[in-house]
Formats: sequence, structure tokens, C-alpha cells
Amino acid sequence: MDLVTADDVRAAATRIAGLVVRTPLTTGPGADAGFCLKPESLQPTGAFKLRGAGNALALLGPDRRANGVVTHSAGNHGLALARAARAHGTSCTVVVPESAPTVKVDRIRETGARVELVPVEERLARARQLEEEQGLALVPPFDDPNVIAGQGTVGSEILEQSSDVETIVVPVGGGGLASGVATAAQAVPGVRVVGVEPELAADAAESLRLGRRVTWPDESTGRTMADGVRTGLSERTYEHLRARSGGVVTVTEDEIAHAVRVLACQARLVAEPSGALAAAAILAGRVPGDPARPEATVAVVSGGNVDPALFARLIAAA
Amino acid sequence: MDLVTADDVRAAATRIAGLVVRTPLTTGPGADAGFCLKPESLQPTGAFKLRGAGNALALLGPDRRANGVVTHSAGNHGLALARAARAHGTSCTVVVPESAPTVKVDRIRETGARVELVPVEERLARARQLEEEQGLALVPPFDDPNVIAGQGTVGSEILEQSSDVETIVVPVGGGGLASGVATAAQAVPGVRVVGVEPELAADAAESLRLGRRVTWPDESTGRTMADGVRTGLSERTYEHLRARSGGVVTVTEDEIAHAVRVLACQARLVAEPSGALAAAAILAGRVPGDPARPEATVAVVSGGNVDPALFARLIAAA
Repeated sequence: MDLVTADDVRAAATRIAGLVVRTPLTTGPGADAGFCLKPESLQPTGAFKLRGAGNALALLGPDRRANGVVTHSAGNHGLALARAARAHGTSCTVVVPESAPTVKVDRIRETGARVELVPVEERLARARQLEEEQGLALVPPFDDPNVIAGQGTVGSEILEQSSDVETIVVPVGGGGLASGVATAAQAVPGVRVVGVEPELAADAAESLRLGRRVTWPDESTGRTMADGVRTGLSERTYEHLRARSGGVVTVTEDEIAHAVRVLACQARLVAEPSGALAAAAILAGRVPGDPARPEATVAVVSGGNVDPALFARLIAAA
Repeated sequence: MDLVTADDVRAAATRIAGLVVRTPLTTGPGADAGFCLKPESLQPTGAFKLRGAGNALALLGPDRRANGVVTHSAGNHGLALARAARAHGTSCTVVVPESAPTVKVDRIRETGARVELVPVEERLARARQLEEEQGLALVPPFDDPNVIAGQGTVGSEILEQSSDVETIVVPVGGGGLASGVATAAQAVPGVRVVGVEPELAADAAESLRLGRRVTWPDESTGRTMADGVRTGLSERTYEHLRARSGGVVTVTEDEIAHAVRVLACQARLVAEPSGALAAAAILAGRVPGDPARPEATVAVVSGGNVDPALFARLIAAA
């Protein structure tokens, strides 16, 4: 399988420059956190997903784009595609599993896309059906080279913003972000990319350990509060991670909740549970930070679309 | 009185570049908010104050700096000076009114400064006493040209980041931020700076209306939840606002609370009540935004050091 290249990521960065925010590198939570943050939660749609969706949509070309686009998504990719489609003046349909958080579904509708709620196991089939029957262009959430290249711009930006980075820590769901960032890191020797999964959805960690891709059933992964990373890897993202990542570590639900609190109270960032995974791994010591060299380690805060009631509960538990 | 110049602001920007984060301009809360945000809550100390403290400290010169610095502050300026002092390897004492939020006082101590808690009306006298008795250099929170020039870099950055800006909205407490930003805006014709105060601490709005500086008693201003803007103007900041601002509008406590919620839920930013004032004014229609031209209006989110329990209550009320 051909892997995405660092040049693909560079080209994506130019393509999406007008659509996305160049998020800053900020100091980590607390004076001596030992790491920096890349708050992708500040993207217009509240997550890094706008990068991949924007790149894929730009590369569709005007004719295919004009007919409308479709995807399946638990939330953030759907929201991103809806926004990118609106920017391009085309229509968008998002097939959403019934288990997706209301806050994300409402936001997708507000952005002007049509939403179809389906049982979680039917999401891909229904998106493909719409592709065939209505001629919509399918933009998958992660199993797509253009999407991966777009997500990789998170990594290329970090490497442009600081020459001291040695470790970039990212959440892993479908693996598009980790694949893209690990690809961007190929351009700079000595930078490693570490993925983070909830213990309850640790299919990527298990896949890398076994040396073959495994998927976990939705009943299992549905238990983590990190709703954005319940998905498993595709063959494509597995191959990227196998070849280019520095491994995948796991965190508990308590560690995720703690990280959401710490990011809010000490870094002034609203992170959704999936978005707090990378910080959780460093705070729990699963990936080492260094108070003497906080600039060496960057945790990507991948998204911030959290249900307000859940968020308030997590903060109040502090 | 000599006012600070746009050149002073430019020089400050160079001086503090290594200390502060270049915060991004992000899209406003919600797809059709009609304005952009400048999240100064992402500064290492959680507020814009690091800019002014950093500039003032750099300009003290090595000899005066070496003896240590002192200030009086309800929180964010004290925290900023503590951090700037640590970066310069000198000691820092912060005189804090007993009414200041615990979260800020704890953070100042964690940053390595000595804290003195005093009754609110004694804060300035005690800081001056420490200046005289111990030879500490006093860095005031706002009544200082170097501090004003530093805060002005919020404005010069905004104007560098977008050429479409017409209105910049900022909170007004002591008036250092508004004075500095209005000074930076002098460099670009057609940009106006509007200040925002809580109705319960609207001394600047009243001063501009009357054409002379008035101050409100602490018993009155102490009632607003926006603890960062309970202070009144100095003659210096009054003169800057009179000559250069586009006026000061006011918002209610409910409007402030609503803005804190909207910033968290729709812009993924943790703002303290004072930090949400500018967004509150636009959301309440006191300053017009424009959904067709969101890039024309920027609300500065000045800080995010909010007590977690208060923050959770405000979010849960959504």
C-alpha cells in the first residue's frame, strides 16, 4: 500500500490555509507541566477534523463536489465536512450513529448539513448507499489519503512553530490524525509520534503489539466516554502507524476525566474526553514530559465538542 | 500628560516576544456569531497581563530588577509579574486584597512569588511601603506607561493578523488594556476600540459620560462577579480612553454569565467573568457584530482564571 508522503502534507497545508486556524503552541497546564499544547479545539468546528475534510473536499474538483458530499461520523468529521461543504457552496449529508452526542448532531444541523441517524453498525453501509444512489462523493472520516494528509498539517504546523519538539502525542481513533502527524514528522529526524487510546478502546495498541490489525466490537468501545475515538483502525491507518509511529499507549477513564479538568482549570481549554487523551497520557506518566524542557513534548488537544452537562460534572468533581 | 505612542507598543512587542504566546484570531462562538475572538486566556498565566508586566520588567534594567519587584493585584497582574520575575531570575512580592479569588492567589504562590493578603483599601499603600522599605521596584497593574504599552500588543497583534478589523472590543477595569489597544489602533485609520464594563462597576463609562474621572467605591464594584475589573481608572488611563477610545458600554451579570457559557460551549474557551465581558457586549447587541463580516469585529477574551466551582455552576446553568 502506498503511504501518504510529507510532500502530500505540505501541499494540504497550502490548500486549507484559508479554512483553518493556525492554532498556537501554548504552555502546558500549570507552571511545571513539562509539555506544550496544540489546541485544535480552537478550530472553527472545534476539532482538527476540518483539516482533513477541507483537503479532501478541495481535491475532489469542482464537478464531483457540485453534486454534494456524504460521510459517516460520530460527530467531529461530520461537522468538519459540513462546514467545508458550506465554504465550497455544496450540499452535505452526514450519516450519524444513534449513540453520537447530541451536542455534535445539533451542531452539524446548524451548519446546514442533512443528518441521518442510524444504528452504529449500519453507518458505513448507509453512507455507501447514498454515494451510489444519489451520486454523492463519499469523504471517509479517516480511511483516505487526502484526509490523512490534511490531518498531518497539525504535525507540520507544530514542527514549523518550534524546532525543539521531540515527541508529539496524539489521540488515536480511526488513526487518521496519528497517521498524518507521523507522516509530517518523517520530514524532521528525531521526532517521534506517540498515539493514545482509552483502555476501553485500545484496538490500535493491541494491533501494534500483535503485528496485525484487530478491531474491537462496538459494545466494548462504546463504554469509553471518549466518544470520538471508539472507531478502529483501517488497513491504511494501521500501515501508517506500524511504519511510522512510536507506538500507542493507553489511559483509564479516570485519567481522561482528570485531564479534562486539568486542561480547563490550568490551561483554560475546553477539551472533549477524546481531545484530552494526549494530555492524559503525559499527566499519568505514560509518556514522559520534562519540566526542564516543556518545549520538547507536545500534546495535541484534538477537539472540544463536549456535552455541557458532562463537562460541568467533570469540572465540578475537581 | 504624555500618552503612550504606537511606537512604544511596537517596541514592547519585540521586547516580550519570547515571554508571551502569539494568540490566534479564532472564529466567534457559533457558526454565525458575527465576530472573532482573541483568546488571551491562552497566555501562560491565563491572561493578557503578562504582556504589560513583561514589558515593564524588561525596561527596569538589570540593576533595579535584581533587587526584586512588588505589585498590588487582584490576581492576574500579580500572576503575570510573578512569572515575568521568575523568567528574569528575580524575586516578586504581590499584595493581594483579601477578596481575591483563591484560584488566583494559589497560582501566584505556585509561580514562586511571596503573597501578602491585605484589606482591599490598603493594597496600594502596602505595596508603596514595601517599595520604600525594601527597595523593591513597584510595577503597577495599569497606571504605568510601560504596562500600557505592553498591553497594547494585544491590539497590534490583532491588526497584524487581519486587515479586515474595524472594531476591537475589550474589557475595562483599570483601563490599561483598553488604553494600550486604543493606542495600537492609532496606527491604522478606521479602527475603533470599544470598552466594556459590568453595570456594577461602570466607573469608566460614567467618567467618559461626565467628561471627568470618577471612581466607584469598593463596596459597589465588589458585587460584580467580574473580579478582574472592579478597579477604577487612573488619570493616565482616563486620558487615554478619553482621547482614543470609541466609548465604554456596560453589560449585566446575567449577560456576563451567558457569555461565559457561550464561550465554553461554542468556542471551547474557558473565560473568567471579566474575560467574557467583550463577548458579552456583542452577544447582548451592545456592540454590533455582523454575521456576514465576522472578521470586522474582534472580542478580546482577556483571561481565563476562573474558580472551577463557579465555572461549573455557570456551565451547568446552560
